[in-house]
Amino acid sequence: MNTIDINCDLGEGFGSYKNEKDLLLMKYISSANIACGFHAGDSSIMLKTAQKCIENKVTIGAHPSFPDLQGFGRRNMDLSAQEVYDICVYQIGALLGVTKVLKTNLHHVKPHGALYNMACKDAKVAKAIAQATKDIDDQLFFYAMPFTPLYDEAKKLGLQVLAEGFADRRYQENGLLIPRSEPKAVIHDNNLVFEQIKMMITEKKVETISGKIIPMPVETICIHSDNELAVAFAESLFRFIEQSGFTAEAQRRRV
Amino acid sequence: MNTIDINCDLGEGFGSYKNEKDLLLMKYISSANIACGFHAGDSSIMLKTAQKCIENKVTIGAHPSFPDLQGFGRRNMDLSAQEVYDICVYQIGALLGVTKVLKTNLHHVKPHGALYNMACKDAKVAKAIAQATKDIDDQLFFYAMPFTPLYDEAKKLGLQVLAEGFADRRYQENGLLIPRSEPKAVIHDNNLVFEQIKMMITEKKVETISGKIIPMPVETICIHSDNELAVAFAESLFRFIEQSGFTAEAQRRRV
Amino acid sequence: MNTIDINCDLGEGFGSYKNEKDLLLMKYISSANIACGFHAGDSSIMLKTAQKCIENKVTIGAHPSFPDLQGFGRRNMDLSAQEVYDICVYQIGALLGVTKVLKTNLHHVKPHGALYNMACKDAKVAKAIAQATKDIDDQLFFYAMPFTPLYDEAKKLGLQVLAEGFADRRYQENGLLIPRSEPKAVIHDNNLVFEQIKMMITEKKVETISGKIIPMPVETICIHSDNELAVAFAESLFRFIEQSGFTAEAQRRRV
Amino acid sequence: MNTIDINCDLGEGFGSYKNEKDLLLMKYISSANIACGFHAGDSSIMLKTAQKCIENKVTIGAHPSFPDLQGFGRRNMDLSAQEVYDICVYQIGALLGVTKVLKTNLHHVKPHGALYNMACKDAKVAKAIAQATKDIDDQLFFYAMPFTPLYDEAKKLGLQVLAEGFADRRYQENGLLIPRSEPKAVIHDNNLVFEQIKMMITEKKVETISGKIIPMPVETICIHSDNELAVAFAESLFRFIEQSGFTAEAQRRRV
Repeated sequence: MNTIDINCDLGEGFGSYKNEKDLLLMKYISSANIACGFHAGDSSIMLKTAQKCIENKVTIGAHPSFPDLQGFGRRNMDLSAQEVYDICVYQIGALLGVTKVLKTNLHHVKPHGALYNMACKDAKVAKAIAQATKDIDDQLFFYAMPFTPLYDEAKKLGLQVLAEGFADRRYQENGLLIPRSEPKAVIHDNNLVFEQIKMMITEKKVETISGKIIPMPVETICIHSDNELAVAFAESLFRFIEQSGFTAEAQRRRV
Repeated sequence: MNTIDINCDLGEGFGSYKNEKDLLLMKYISSANIACGFHAGDSSIMLKTAQKCIENKVTIGAHPSFPDLQGFGRRNMDLSAQEVYDICVYQIGALLGVTKVLKTNLHHVKPHGALYNMACKDAKVAKAIAQATKDIDDQLFFYAMPFTPLYDEAKKLGLQVLAEGFADRRYQENGLLIPRSEPKAVIHDNNLVFEQIKMMITEKKVETISGKIIPMPVETICIHSDNELAVAFAESLFRFIEQSGFTAEAQRRRV
Repeated sequence: MNTIDINCDLGEGFGSYKNEKDLLLMKYISSANIACGFHAGDSSIMLKTAQKCIENKVTIGAHPSFPDLQGFGRRNMDLSAQEVYDICVYQIGALLGVTKVLKTNLHHVKPHGALYNMACKDAKVAKAIAQATKDIDDQLFFYAMPFTPLYDEAKKLGLQVLAEGFADRRYQENGLLIPRSEPKAVIHDNNLVFEQIKMMITEKKVETISGKIIPMPVETICIHSDNELAVAFAESLFRFIEQSGFTAEAQRRRV
Repeated sequence: MNTIDINCDLGEGFGSYKNEKDLLLMKYISSANIACGFHAGDSSIMLKTAQKCIENKVTIGAHPSFPDLQGFGRRNMDLSAQEVYDICVYQIGALLGVTKVLKTNLHHVKPHGALYNMACKDAKVAKAIAQATKDIDDQLFFYAMPFTPLYDEAKKLGLQVLAEGFADRRYQENGLLIPRSEPKAVIHDNNLVFEQIKMMITEKKVETISGKIIPMPVETICIHSDNELAVAFAESLFRFIEQSGFTAEAQRRRV
């Protein structure tokens, strides 16, 4: 049976601000990246979200961020590599505590927002995140976009890195995404989105914006929770993947 | 060989505010209660403090607090039992992450400030803290003042509870401390402090303010890090304990 | 022309969490209590909300709170009177800055959530809030529930206090609300709500839960923004008040 | 009588972390830049610091920062110009509240740390800070290093900009400081520091690291509060300035 992982950021409310869509999204994904309190999420939301993940057979991953609640972790911050390491240890640890009390395992780490994006360009930031992950538990999966320092540094450290594909984004010939600032960055036609996903998961390739076909070894597909159509899209994708002969399923921890 | 544990709150700086005394205090204590970011401490300070604890053979304990950085966790907050549980899981988890990357074990949990004090009066708060501790790791020691709900609830849950004695505080006949608001709450004469400690650790008794001798089964002595004389006092206490035929040493985790 | 003020808490989003209902509610109220960053609101939301208030001819009031973003300011905190004074000065000042750059006046102060409720029982807390208000600008209106220390302390200091009536809550014979913990606390039938409001604004009386008619000198009616039906209710109330021969209008600053 | 302003960052403690040197420093300065809660300072410290400024005839200025308490505002953050404007309005407003309750005037604005440094290179950031200052009160002085966008943008908006000289830093030929990362950035010999200051305040010139004499129209000298020798240095500078025929005195608000 062919399987493909679908991951989504969850638990991104804070205090009285709830993300009502989380429960609905859980039906159509296999892995959750749970906010750890620095860009969103708090101790109560983390625990509730992780409980629901277990009920829905969704894996629990940590989604560490820069400390920027007001900016939702989307603003670049100039932290030293050591500081990046330290905030990742803290946040992954906090979610580790949650998995301990729920008698389950932490499954993976995927950095959030500006931290993810900086680590896709800066090997020092990337290494700090990957090292924190490995030092906490070297059996954790690590989600990263291929062809980036984030992916490469985690591989070098021996982590089990899962290559992320982005469902609705267009790619450059170097395997990176077209920046959001450019007009053609996002694919708005769901049929094209599904074609791209199908090529990614069946052929491990993608067609770039220039029309060239390049390798794209996707092991997990990232979908978003923060727009109005998130649930409808997640459901369509889930159905499409089933129809394509795949099952949405996360990789299993060996230990 | 007789041993007695000496515990002290450490890592209670924040960001650029450092507690310079920590390194000096480590020589004279056996267990550290490390702030977990809610009343003090941050990811970087936690990691550095824990590293130094290892070097100094001081055990690493979590010191969770109400979320009140400005008030240093000293102001009562009206949280539900579930909220108390959740913030304890988060904070203990964060320090668990730190111990994981340092390849050591978390040793104990001791709540901080207003959370400790409320739990000494309110069984619901006490149970929430103790349950969070047990659910994260049922081999963790739990530090609590005897004759309080904090102590009793943790015992009921089967945790290994260590009874705390307070070096420089006077006791009531019910085994509780004279409130700080009262004039005779604190013993200012170090000779009297040492006499009280000696009776606590050798006879497991204490003389109350009324002159009555009551049982006081002290397994760990709490000293403070937040005053000018903290280091000098810690050193004197350490010497005194040695001269009394004891070694300052924490209890060992079995697992 | 008879007028009555309708006040509502606005700007209670935070960062990426927006309160979409604010813009709709503004059409049906005359005064806004704008969150000042401690329980909700941030510098950007405050500025945008205040701008929209000006466009909608809604007065701008400060809505200071305990520092408790996670708990939305709804959890009691044990602050000293001086600390309450200090946090009110800070928050009212921050919104004063907003009104300065918008070249308008700050209109009133109304404390939020747990701070409001504590001040309705504790004269020291009440006086601290009222004193901060007066010291910043003695021409500010002060919104408070009558028959409470919050109202009385502000009056004693010479502030222009506007008595608040609660549209959908039942009253005790002492003029205070039935606590929310009791079954009959909230009036769910809108017809009864409107009857109560009509008696409040036309006769300055209210019928208590026991059936007794007591004086209730209401000068402003408080409605809520944080439930699904908030906008629909606000519109119905607005229409009902018009039909009752009143205009929803805030009192004007003299200076 | 010749006068020169000496400014210093004050109120940079937080919660239980106090800056004990503040009271001593106040004797030797004429203007204080008071932290507004985002990198340091809180509502209570701001009020106490401002009270002491009045007693010591030191002017009260706002010292807004990026929202980064853990990093003490020293880490670059990638905020939009609008976000910079908004956080400045909030922080200056909060201190404006403090000055209102103390029945005094706010005197000036000087951005802090990374915000200051970014504004010395980026005109958009600079303009946002200057615009917020002007919009709150166009009679506020604005402290900025000459030959930078921070200075120029504030001038363009018509603010009364006071050119800052740095006592212990070496200058490049373009009037900017040698970056701290370079070995000769800081002057460690106090005699050389005083010579540089004397040339700055008497001749409005400075000798660059290359030996060239360039214009340096200094109207205020910045000294630091965050090192061990801060008070001793402040006193020496104060005495030296007196001996040079100057008085340490801030410029007076006209309105």
